[in-house]
Amino acid sequence: MTDIQPEGLETDIVPPKEIQQHQKMMQRCLALAQQAAGRTAPNPLVGCVIVRDGEIVGEGFHPQAGEPHAEVFALRAAGKQATGATAYVSLEPCNHFGRTPPCTEALINAQVARVVVGMVDPDPRVSGRGIERLRSANIRVIVGVEEQACQDVNEAFIHRTLHQRPFGTLKYAMTLDGKIATSQGHSAWVTQEAARTHVHQLRSTCDAVIVGGNTVRHDNPRLTSHVGGNSPNPLRVVMTRSLQLPKTAHLWDQEEAATLVLTEGNPNPQFQTELIEQGVEVVNLESLTPLHAMNYLNQRDILSVLWECGGTLAAPAIADGVVQKVLAFVAPKIVGGLSAPSPVGELNLNKMTSAITLERVHWRTLGPDLLVEGYLSSD
Amino acid sequence: MTDIQPEGLETDIVPPKEIQQHQKMMQRCLALAQQAAGRTAPNPLVGCVIVRDGEIVGEGFHPQAGEPHAEVFALRAAGKQATGATAYVSLEPCNHFGRTPPCTEALINAQVARVVVGMVDPDPRVSGRGIERLRSANIRVIVGVEEQACQDVNEAFIHRTLHQRPFGTLKYAMTLDGKIATSQGHSAWVTQEAARTHVHQLRSTCDAVIVGGNTVRHDNPRLTSHVGGNSPNPLRVVMTRSLQLPKTAHLWDQEEAATLVLTEGNPNPQFQTELIEQGVEVVNLESLTPLHAMNYLNQRDILSVLWECGGTLAAPAIADGVVQKVLAFVAPKIVGGLSAPSPVGELNLNKMTSAITLERVHWRTLGPDLLVEGYLSSD
Repeated sequence: MTDIQPEGLETDIVPPKEIQQHQKMMQRCLALAQQAAGRTAPNPLVGCVIVRDGEIVGEGFHPQAGEPHAEVFALRAAGKQATGATAYVSLEPCNHFGRTPPCTEALINAQVARVVVGMVDPDPRVSGRGIERLRSANIRVIVGVEEQACQDVNEAFIHRTLHQRPFGTLKYAMTLDGKIATSQGHSAWVTQEAARTHVHQLRSTCDAVIVGGNTVRHDNPRLTSHVGGNSPNPLRVVMTRSLQLPKTAHLWDQEEAATLVLTEGNPNPQFQTELIEQGVEVVNLESLTPLHAMNYLNQRDILSVLWECGGTLAAPAIADGVVQKVLAFVAPKIVGGLSAPSPVGELNLNKMTSAITLERVHWRTLGPDLLVEGYLSSD
Repeated sequence: MTDIQPEGLETDIVPPKEIQQHQKMMQRCLALAQQAAGRTAPNPLVGCVIVRDGEIVGEGFHPQAGEPHAEVFALRAAGKQATGATAYVSLEPCNHFGRTPPCTEALINAQVARVVVGMVDPDPRVSGRGIERLRSANIRVIVGVEEQACQDVNEAFIHRTLHQRPFGTLKYAMTLDGKIATSQGHSAWVTQEAARTHVHQLRSTCDAVIVGGNTVRHDNPRLTSHVGGNSPNPLRVVMTRSLQLPKTAHLWDQEEAATLVLTEGNPNPQFQTELIEQGVEVVNLESLTPLHAMNYLNQRDILSVLWECGGTLAAPAIADGVVQKVLAFVAPKIVGGLSAPSPVGELNLNKMTSAITLERVHWRTLGPDLLVEGYLSSD
């Protein structure tokens, strides 16, 4: 547990014996929060548990924008047992009227004795206000339990709050000799089942997936989560300048998931009409760059975007600063090929010492394949 | 401990309580054996310990070709205490006169009671003969203790014995987007200190290192082990068809290590003369292919070859079947570059499903970098 708190807030001293209980309950909040992964944009993932005499008496999470916040569900479940209880919540309770009334008032009205907060609100304009309000009502507040885990769960929300742009993740699968396809463009499959299942899972937690025209032409992907049940699918976004795309493509089938085509200069109007008739949305941007695309998706309340494109689009996305994280799947195989594509195109870096070094790197295996995760330095 | 033995040999049943002692002593043999890594070609790495009443009374390893075998050193050290003792040896004792008398006779003459053998001789023409001879002299023989570890230590020797060609390892360092250099050819440095130190260590255990002309022109490498002391350096081999190489290069400096230039058709005779005057060896092969180069190095009694070349040479080396193992260092950085080179050039594999899948793959970190090791399927 860290002591990172907004300036001006009182520090509570937590007896060591309590810390473990706090961590356990906050982990439960995060598990609850993640049940809504991929559904809450533009809102964060939040979980809440109400604990009385060491037992959970109410649980809740924020299911989607427009629905009540996590605290409300948990307090409802706890009923009168909330009086004198401890409320655990993974993100600082809001203190303003949005689509729903402030959660601080709900906690105060329920007469909880104590609130344990995972992390403060990332928005510097309101950060700490909820905690202040609770303390002014004589509720004891502890801040920063499992703080890193709380931040990790909401990394997209935090990024968008601070930068007014969705959080971008570049995902690719390459061979151990750095190829995402053969010289002939054949790429099915680089990785094995476990890695592919992981990608499907990942898609269900992202609000949008972006590919370029080349991917549509060569791979004809579905870009759905395939997870089944009522697992959410991301908005499938195609960036294409020419709009010279196949008449028939899995992405034009709108039954399972929606597709948005981003272009510029109104190319190929006849085909635009055909797409629109099939239910595909077509939007002409002023300029079809990764930055403009992300700004546009931000306006559409999208938090997290998975770049599943080839190197031609991945390079300007990195250069535009709209990629925050890299997920590289590496398959232990060699395919060679002088013209076989690599995952990232031209970045105009002439010296190896100018390469972009990833931070907070983690490696893990998925079946026979390796997944490398890392963050691009944020500035 | 496995039961893999040459057909026709009796199987000894080892009491379980003894197994741990056997393993421990065999591991000591391997540690001794590896003290001569990089020095024994064309002979194997072998270690031997003599144990009496549970205590080591003599140790030895084979230091280099022409010197006595491990058993001889260990028996010498044990002296009269060898009588009735157990001899552990990582490779089946030889039963023939080579440059030295047979070790079987030395063990028999020393009157050891028991011999524990790590692995049988890989040469099918003599495999099992040493064990047979010992058993015919009423010495108890146990075979296959730490067998896989014994095989791993001598993988190069085993490969050369079976295929009459050195064991080839392709080593490269690439970024997480599959580049071994920038578009401008700049490659210093892809990996950090720990990985580079590992490569130096690796070179000291290999008999030869091969690069192509491009590597000499772009990187001007030393290809030495840098390990210091009297650590061995590999023979540095340059494969060049044109012999259009810089007049001055670290590789022409013969003080620290020897260099062999392999070419064909006698190109650039003036420069050949200049190289020879500096002590560099120049050999014109009938045909300058990786296969011919490896056959030539085999004639020169070389066991293990490290391919430290770029993709242009790596691809035909793989295609020629002279690469048995891949060591890929992956640095968690992104450099991009449409014309930035990848580790393996053209293999003419059109489908991803035709990619060469590595076997027995291991991943580990070296500082911030990752090392992926795997074997190409042996046929």
